[in-house]
Amino acid sequence: MSPKHPSESLTTLTDLVLPSETNPLNNLFGGELLARMDRAASIAARRHSRRITVTASVNHVAFNRAIPLGSVVTVEAKVSRAFTTSMEIYIDVWLEDRESGIRTKANEAIYTFVAVDETGNPVPVPQIDPQTELEKTRFDAALRRKQLSLVLAGKMNPHDATELKALFI
Amino acid sequence: MSPKHPSESLTTLTDLVLPSETNPLNNLFGGELLARMDRAASIAARRHSRRITVTASVNHVAFNRAIPLGSVVTVEAKVSRAFTTSMEIYIDVWLEDRESGIRTKANEAIYTFVAVDETGNPVPVPQIDPQTELEKTRFDAALRRKQLSLVLAGKMNPHDATELKALFI
Amino acid sequence: MSPKHPSESLTTLTDLVLPSETNPLNNLFGGELLARMDRAASIAARRHSRRITVTASVNHVAFNRAIPLGSVVTVEAKVSRAFTTSMEIYIDVWLEDRESGIRTKANEAIYTFVAVDETGNPVPVPQIDPQTELEKTRFDAALRRKQLSLVLAGKMNPHDATELKALFI
Amino acid sequence: MSPKHPSESLTTLTDLVLPSETNPLNNLFGGELLARMDRAASIAARRHSRRITVTASVNHVAFNRAIPLGSVVTVEAKVSRAFTTSMEIYIDVWLEDRESGIRTKANEAIYTFVAVDETGNPVPVPQIDPQTELEKTRFDAALRRKQLSLVLAGKMNPHDATELKALFI
Amino acid sequence: MSPKHPSESLTTLTDLVLPSETNPLNNLFGGELLARMDRAASIAARRHSRRITVTASVNHVAFNRAIPLGSVVTVEAKVSRAFTTSMEIYIDVWLEDRESGIRTKANEAIYTFVAVDETGNPVPVPQIDPQTELEKTRFDAALRRKQLSLVLAGKMNPHDATELKALFI
Amino acid sequence: MSPKHPSESLTTLTDLVLPSETNPLNNLFGGELLARMDRAASIAARRHSRRITVTASVNHVAFNRAIPLGSVVTVEAKVSRAFTTSMEIYIDVWLEDRESGIRTKANEAIYTFVAVDETGNPVPVPQIDPQTELEKTRFDAALRRKQLSLVLAGKMNPHDATELKALFI
Repeated sequence: MSPKHPSESLTTLTDLVLPSETNPLNNLFGGELLARMDRAASIAARRHSRRITVTASVNHVAFNRAIPLGSVVTVEAKVSRAFTTSMEIYIDVWLEDRESGIRTKANEAIYTFVAVDETGNPVPVPQIDPQTELEKTRFDAALRRKQLSLVLAGKMNPHDATELKALFI
Repeated sequence: MSPKHPSESLTTLTDLVLPSETNPLNNLFGGELLARMDRAASIAARRHSRRITVTASVNHVAFNRAIPLGSVVTVEAKVSRAFTTSMEIYIDVWLEDRESGIRTKANEAIYTFVAVDETGNPVPVPQIDPQTELEKTRFDAALRRKQLSLVLAGKMNPHDATELKALFI
Repeated sequence: MSPKHPSESLTTLTDLVLPSETNPLNNLFGGELLARMDRAASIAARRHSRRITVTASVNHVAFNRAIPLGSVVTVEAKVSRAFTTSMEIYIDVWLEDRESGIRTKANEAIYTFVAVDETGNPVPVPQIDPQTELEKTRFDAALRRKQLSLVLAGKMNPHDATELKALFI
Repeated sequence: MSPKHPSESLTTLTDLVLPSETNPLNNLFGGELLARMDRAASIAARRHSRRITVTASVNHVAFNRAIPLGSVVTVEAKVSRAFTTSMEIYIDVWLEDRESGIRTKANEAIYTFVAVDETGNPVPVPQIDPQTELEKTRFDAALRRKQLSLVLAGKMNPHDATELKALFI
Repeated sequence: MSPKHPSESLTTLTDLVLPSETNPLNNLFGGELLARMDRAASIAARRHSRRITVTASVNHVAFNRAIPLGSVVTVEAKVSRAFTTSMEIYIDVWLEDRESGIRTKANEAIYTFVAVDETGNPVPVPQIDPQTELEKTRFDAALRRKQLSLVLAGKMNPHDATELKALFI
Repeated sequence: MSPKHPSESLTTLTDLVLPSETNPLNNLFGGELLARMDRAASIAARRHSRRITVTASVNHVAFNRAIPLGSVVTVEAKVSRAFTTSMEIYIDVWLEDRESGIRTKANEAIYTFVAVDETGNPVPVPQIDPQTELEKTRFDAALRRKQLSLVLAGKMNPHDATELKALFI
C-alpha cells in the first residue's frame, strides 16, 4: 500500500446546533459534539483505509469554547498519522459567526480508529505522508501521543518512550 | 466547603443499547457511548459541586471492547479529584451478560468538568477525600494527568511537572 | 429455579431531562417518562429471569409531580412479584434538587413483563422472596393487582378474586 | 360549558414503526408505543378542553400483540368521560396488514389528563355526552375506574365506591 | 387490478410539534415537516398499492405558513393519480388553533412514490377513480405535473407534452 | 450589497447513514434525506445572506438512487440565484464507495429560502454572480423555475412567463 496524504481523508461536516442538542446554558452538549466528531473521524479513517473502522480511543478533547444554539458548526477531520492497523485522526471544530461570517476555532480533538475486516479483526492501513507544516507537526506529535498512551496503559516502559522522554529531560 | 467522598457523587446509568445507536458491525457507536458517559459524568460533577457543570475536556477514553445491540450497559461515574473550579470524573463502563448475569469491564474514561454560575463563570468546588484503595490510586494519578494536560497545552514547563517527570526519570 | 430477592433485579437509570423531552410547560413529557421506565423495567425483568422480556401491561402510573427541564431523574426498578411466566416490576422515580441534593419521590409505576424465548413464547421465571417491609407490602398487593387485571379483562369471576374482594366487603 | 361528544376529540395518528423504535425481537418497544399514545391522548384532551393538558395517570395498558418493524400503526384517541378538571382518554391501537389491508386491534389503553392554565393550575373542562353504544359503555366504566384509582390511592373508602363494589357483591 | 378511490388511501397523521423539531424562530423546521409528510405519503402509497413503496420525487412543496412549537399539526395524504408503477400523493397540512379549534391550511405538497417488490423492482399499481370535485381537479393536474417532470428531466420533448403546452399557448 | 459568488455559500455535510434513518429495504428514508438537505441548504442561504433563513419551498427533488445503510453521504449546497429576498439553493448529493473511494451522484434537489429578520419579516439579500459553466447554467434555469412556480401558484399569467414559454413554442 502506497502512503497517502492527509488531505485525501479530509472530511467536512457542517451542520446546525439543534434545540435537542443543548445543555441548560443553551450551548451544545459536550456529549453531542463528541458524537459528531466521532462520526466525522470514522469517515476520515474509512477514506484513508477503505475499510470498516471502529473507535479505539479518544485523547485529550478540550472544550475551550461554548457553542450556542443555532450556531453553524464545522467539524473537519483528517488522518494525522497511521500505525500498523490504527490511525490517529486530528479534528478541528470551527464556529461561524452568522453576521460577519468569521470562522473561529472552537475545539480540537484527537481520536484513534482501527481498521477491521467484516469479522472485526484488525487489518493493515496505508502510511501517511504529511505535506503542510501543520500536518508535519501533527505527524511528529502523534508518535509522542502513541508512546504516552502505551506508557499510561502500562504497555511500554517509560524509559523506552524515547520521543516522549525528550520532553521532560 | 468541607471535602466530600467520591461515593457522594456516584452516578449509575443503566440502559439498553438501542438499534438507533449501533454501527455497521451492530455494536454501540463510539460516539453514542461518549455522549452517555458525558451525561453521567455531568450528573456526578453536579452532585459533587451542587452547581451547573460543563464539559471541559475528555482524556484518554479507550474502547477496549465492542458492546453489541441489545446489551445492558452500566455507566458508573464518580468524582476522582477536585481542583479549584474543576473536577476529574472517572467513569467505568460495565457490560452484563444476559444469561449468566456476569458483569465485565467494557471501558474506562476520564472527563473533566468545570462548575459555573448562571452566567457561565467558574466557581469553586469542594475538595475530594478518597476512601478506598482504588479511589486513592485514582486521586493520585489525577494530579499527573492534570500536569500532563498543562504540559501538552503549553501552559506548564515540563520541568515543573514534578509528579509527571517522576514517571520518566 | 430457586427464588430470588427483589434487590437482585434492582436497576438504576439516572439521567438528565433533555430539551427534546419536554412539553409546552417545559416539564418532562409523560410519554418520555413512560419510555424510560419501560427500559429500566425491562432490564430489571431480564436480570430476574435471565431471559428476553417483553412489556405485557402497564398499571396505574400516576404523574404526581412535574419534572422540569434540566432535572436529574433517577428511575429505580425492581421485580416485586413473579408469577408463572410474568413479573410485576415496581418503579420509583426520584427527582434530585441540584442545590440541596435532596431527593423527592416524583412518581411510581407498575409494569408487567413476560419472559420469552427467541421465538417469542413465554417461559417460566424464578419466584420472588421479599426481604424488606416495603418489598413484602408490594409483594402482597401484587396478587390483588393481578386479580384485578383478570377481573377487568373478564378472565376471572369477581367472586373468585378472594384477595381483592376482601377490600370491598 | 356545554357538553361535547367524544367524536369531537377524536385524534388519529397513523405512522410507521421505524428501526430506531424496535426491541431485540424486532417489534415496537413498549415504551415507544406508550409515548405515541401519550401524544395522541394529549391532543384529544386538548381538543376537548381547548387548554394545555398534562398527563395525570396511565391505567391498565395491555400489550396483547407484538407490532413488527415496518408496520403501519394507527393510534386513535378520544375522550371517554370528563370529570371536574380531568379527562379519561380511551385509546385504540390498530395494526394494518400491508398485503390484505385488514386492520386488527393491537392494543387498548386508558390515560387520564388534567387541563391546566399557563401556570400549571387545574381548570374546569366540558362534560362528555356519549353517543354510540361503545361510547356509553366506556363512559359508564370510566366512573368505576375513577373510584378504583381513588380506592387504590387511599383517597376513597372502598365502601363508598358504590359503582365498583357492585362488581364484587 | 380494479381502480380505487382516493379516499381508500387517506392517511391522517396528527401529532405535536416537539421542541427538538424547531428552528431558531421556534417554528417547525422545514426539514422535519418534509420527513413527516414523507412518512404519511408512503403509507398512503402503500394503502393504495399494498406494496413496499419508496420515494421517487418531491414536487413543489410551498411553506406558506410558520408552524409554532407546541402546535397540533395534521398531515393528510391521499393518492391523487396512479401511473404504471408510480403514484402521485397529494398532501394537505393543517394547523389547529388550541383555543378556537379552527383548522387552517398550513402547507400543500406533492410526492411521487414507486411500488416495488422485495428486491426493489417496480411493480404495477391499481389506477385511481377520482370522486369529489377536488379529487378530479388534482387528478387532471397530475398529468400536467407528470409531463412537466419528464420535460424538465429531458425525457419528453416539450412539443409532445400536450396537456402542459395548453397552459402556455 | 455587492453580488457574491456561489462558492462563497458552499456548504458540505458529510455524514453516515445511521440505522435509525433507514426504510424497510435498509436504504436511507426519503424523508431523512430531505431533512439533511434542508439543514445544509439553510446554512448555504445563511452564508450568502448573513441572515436567519427559513424554507420557502422545495422543487423537484428526484430520488434516483437508493442510499444503503452505512453509506457515506455528502450533501453539497450552494446558492444558485438570488431574487429580492429569496434564494434558490442547488443541492448535489454524492455517495461514496467505501472500497474504491469513487463518488457517484445520488440525488439533486432545489430548495428556496427566504432571509428574514428577528421578527420573521423578509429582508433583501445580495445578488449572485455565477462563475463556472455549471453555475451559469443553473443561474439561467433558476429564472424559468421561478416563473414556473409563479404560474403554478396562479400568481403569474403563463403568457408573461417569457423564459418558460420559450421551452414550449
